[in-house]
Amino acid sequence: MGEVSATEPPFRRIGIVGVGLIGGSIALASREQWPSVHLAGVDRPDVVAEAARRRIVDEASTELSALADADLIVLAAPVRQNLSLLAQLERYVSGAAIITDVGSTKRDIVRAAADLPARFTFVGGHPLGGTAFGGLQYARADLFVNRPWILTPSRDADAADVTTLQTFVTMIGSRACVMTPEDHDRVLAYVSHLPQLAASALMQVVGTAVGREGLALAGGGLADTTRLASSPADIWRDIAGSNADEIAPAIDALIAVLASLRDDLRDGGRLEALFADAARWRDQLVARAQL
Amino acid sequence: MGEVSATEPPFRRIGIVGVGLIGGSIALASREQWPSVHLAGVDRPDVVAEAARRRIVDEASTELSALADADLIVLAAPVRQNLSLLAQLERYVSGAAIITDVGSTKRDIVRAAADLPARFTFVGGHPLGGTAFGGLQYARADLFVNRPWILTPSRDADAADVTTLQTFVTMIGSRACVMTPEDHDRVLAYVSHLPQLAASALMQVVGTAVGREGLALAGGGLADTTRLASSPADIWRDIAGSNADEIAPAIDALIAVLASLRDDLRDGGRLEALFADAARWRDQLVARAQL
Repeated sequence: MGEVSATEPPFRRIGIVGVGLIGGSIALASREQWPSVHLAGVDRPDVVAEAARRRIVDEASTELSALADADLIVLAAPVRQNLSLLAQLERYVSGAAIITDVGSTKRDIVRAAADLPARFTFVGGHPLGGTAFGGLQYARADLFVNRPWILTPSRDADAADVTTLQTFVTMIGSRACVMTPEDHDRVLAYVSHLPQLAASALMQVVGTAVGREGLALAGGGLADTTRLASSPADIWRDIAGSNADEIAPAIDALIAVLASLRDDLRDGGRLEALFADAARWRDQLVARAQL
Repeated sequence: MGEVSATEPPFRRIGIVGVGLIGGSIALASREQWPSVHLAGVDRPDVVAEAARRRIVDEASTELSALADADLIVLAAPVRQNLSLLAQLERYVSGAAIITDVGSTKRDIVRAAADLPARFTFVGGHPLGGTAFGGLQYARADLFVNRPWILTPSRDADAADVTTLQTFVTMIGSRACVMTPEDHDRVLAYVSHLPQLAASALMQVVGTAVGREGLALAGGGLADTTRLASSPADIWRDIAGSNADEIAPAIDALIAVLASLRDDLRDGGRLEALFADAARWRDQLVARAQL
């Protein structure tokens, strides 16, 4: 992959499959950091047309052959599609390359990457963005600034390649963080997947119970708590399916706390203890996540 | 109570017990609308000192005797305290008065108001504010602008008095809305109390499972979903206790949806159907609540 320094781009030719919010933002951030880097984007015809029109990529294509000479390939489609794309790369990419993805679950894809030929190094990736909206129209160069970007290398990944990718994600502004795919999927089940599912469940329950007229009486609290219920359904369907074994116990833990809350509604002391505990964790969240 | 017109204040002397976020904002909004109205505030010594210093009230006292000549009395303490205050008014207020409260549950206090002497008209009230923070320092004159203010008259309340109070809350900017105490408590269990409890439960479960390091990996989604977990514990303890019979089935409904979500994690079709349903309700919420 060559030497890496702050003045030299860690990659010469970057291929991005899926030019949506994340893929588009990676392209914009790379262009800003390294004007000379060659960017190829692969997606549906309408998306690549938009990416080309806005000069977000140098080469816009609906075919994976556009990735042929890339030294970094970023799979930025939904989780299940990334798995099928990974299996096709061998046919289209002839040279050595680092391959990463940006999916929200990591065990499946790191496991699948074990079948890649030796000229490829796979390092799973997960940039933690902060927006509920998908799509190229929301892409921006500073999307990753000061946000965590988790890297989950396969066990036999070349250490120098991992470092190169770490340099890349750091230079486009993120805070790189290396974890095993197993740790990633367990932690994300709680900090990301559970809140998503809880927000959708809550919105469904409240809407069904009180209808449109009742919702007119809601304050900002319900709106905050259910903001995630507007997230793209297809992306979350894939995430839930590929991390079901970690999400299920997280849901069960939430159900258990809700059930004891229900039993304690008239027990002021126990309620206050739970509220105080939750408020302390909330303070930690705000302090740690630098929100 | 005299005639009400847009140029004349509906009340001459307003007594407010509990000069916090809501009580303080009622004082500020009344002063702005009717500079000549006399405002008496009753609270703990430090709070009334602050209210007097900032000239939020004309008369600041720690004693209910400050309410003696009021024609409107607003109970703006936590729910349980309002119940005990209500029982004391007969001793301190000699003339006719409209009495209202601003508590988040309504059946208990409307029931208790049946014991008041005939010179008092009780109309329960619940302004739906939009902030998670309590305290006089957050009070502001425009807190109620364009927000719903639910009124729950007792069954035998004088209709003219109900209209007078409706005029008052409308003229300080809110959208008045008359409901029975029973309807109020059922709807609010869903649109307000359930989100509060769900946010605290979620924050407690996630914090306990992943710890401080895991929370550093959380995005804006968890932060939005748990914002309510910072709400004042004493206020929510009282609300939960006084509306337990309506909140319990709301929690059970949420548990049921979470349990089926857990069973459907690998069933893409059912997941997408739930997400779509939740997203539709969320659109309704944003459209109806004018957030």
